[in-house]
Amino acid sequence: MSAGEVAGSRLARMIARLITQRACLEWAAAEIREIDGPVLELGLGKGRTYDHLRRLLPDREILVFDRFVHAPRDCVPPGGTLVLGELRKTVADATARLAGRVALIHADIGSGDRSADSALGADLAPHLAALPRPGGLVLCDRELALDGFDRVPLPPGAADWRYFIYRTPNHEDGDDRP
Amino acid sequence: MSAGEVAGSRLARMIARLITQRACLEWAAAEIREIDGPVLELGLGKGRTYDHLRRLLPDREILVFDRFVHAPRDCVPPGGTLVLGELRKTVADATARLAGRVALIHADIGSGDRSADSALGADLAPHLAALPRPGGLVLCDRELALDGFDRVPLPPGAADWRYFIYRTPNHEDGDDRP
Repeated sequence: MSAGEVAGSRLARMIARLITQRACLEWAAAEIREIDGPVLELGLGKGRTYDHLRRLLPDREILVFDRFVHAPRDCVPPGGTLVLGELRKTVADATARLAGRVALIHADIGSGDRSADSALGADLAPHLAALPRPGGLVLCDRELALDGFDRVPLPPGAADWRYFIYRTPNHEDGDDRP
Repeated sequence: MSAGEVAGSRLARMIARLITQRACLEWAAAEIREIDGPVLELGLGKGRTYDHLRRLLPDREILVFDRFVHAPRDCVPPGGTLVLGELRKTVADATARLAGRVALIHADIGSGDRSADSALGADLAPHLAALPRPGGLVLCDRELALDGFDRVPLPPGAADWRYFIYRTPNHEDGDDRP
């Protein structure tokens, strides 16, 4: 088997995925330093990226959304910051409270089912577009249609893995709503 | 939180673990090129390292041992190469058939329970010591007491993660049993 086929193993692909996530999260944490507001993590999963985010941003409120908890106990978000339920409903509820106030959304929503992912991404997109504060960011493991948002290239350190970073439109206009 | 604490996240540790596994497997695959015999993978798990091994060693028989299958369908070993059951029993049975004939064992047996891992490692060690052909290798995510084996340093490319490589004793003496 060729080197390319070795590079396509599930081990190699998992490494590329996690390295890309780490690079994107570390870049985003630095980018939002001056931007107030909570961070939203969609998809707790095993709690890996949540654990990394809370260490990168120890003073930031991080709200975590998932359907259920299967993270290790030490990666379960503290009471009040974990929102359980269907993402379509819980994220819509969050939009009602937090529209225009969120600094960063990390949506790790991909599954093995591309068509389900695509439908979920399409349903969530209007909320993901409404939540961020000007200058705020949306990171996602699936491509999203966020009206007017700029697609940002992946930062240095990202591996050969598809990930998507979007920034709110016209954030340099300096809309300073509190 | 300090940089060190960020480096200790579950995301960062998973990356270090997988990169170390990949480096060890790639090194071992090259090391055993001239050494006949099957490869044993103890712990199929999600099938990541099995997938990497079978791509590295497409012409080698790989026997996989686990208690049950929870790998994706495309990473389930073909019939006859997957041995299901308690490792203490299945590995003992393999020793009866394959003692002194195995080229490489990769034992990814660690769990969250250090004392259970330690007990399992102690029970498996006599078999892991008996199985390899001269010059054969044992890779493990837990320290093992393999009588007379040499501990080999981790290869270049390994990350900051504990992994253990052992080589059969006195393999340069050229015991050529078939």
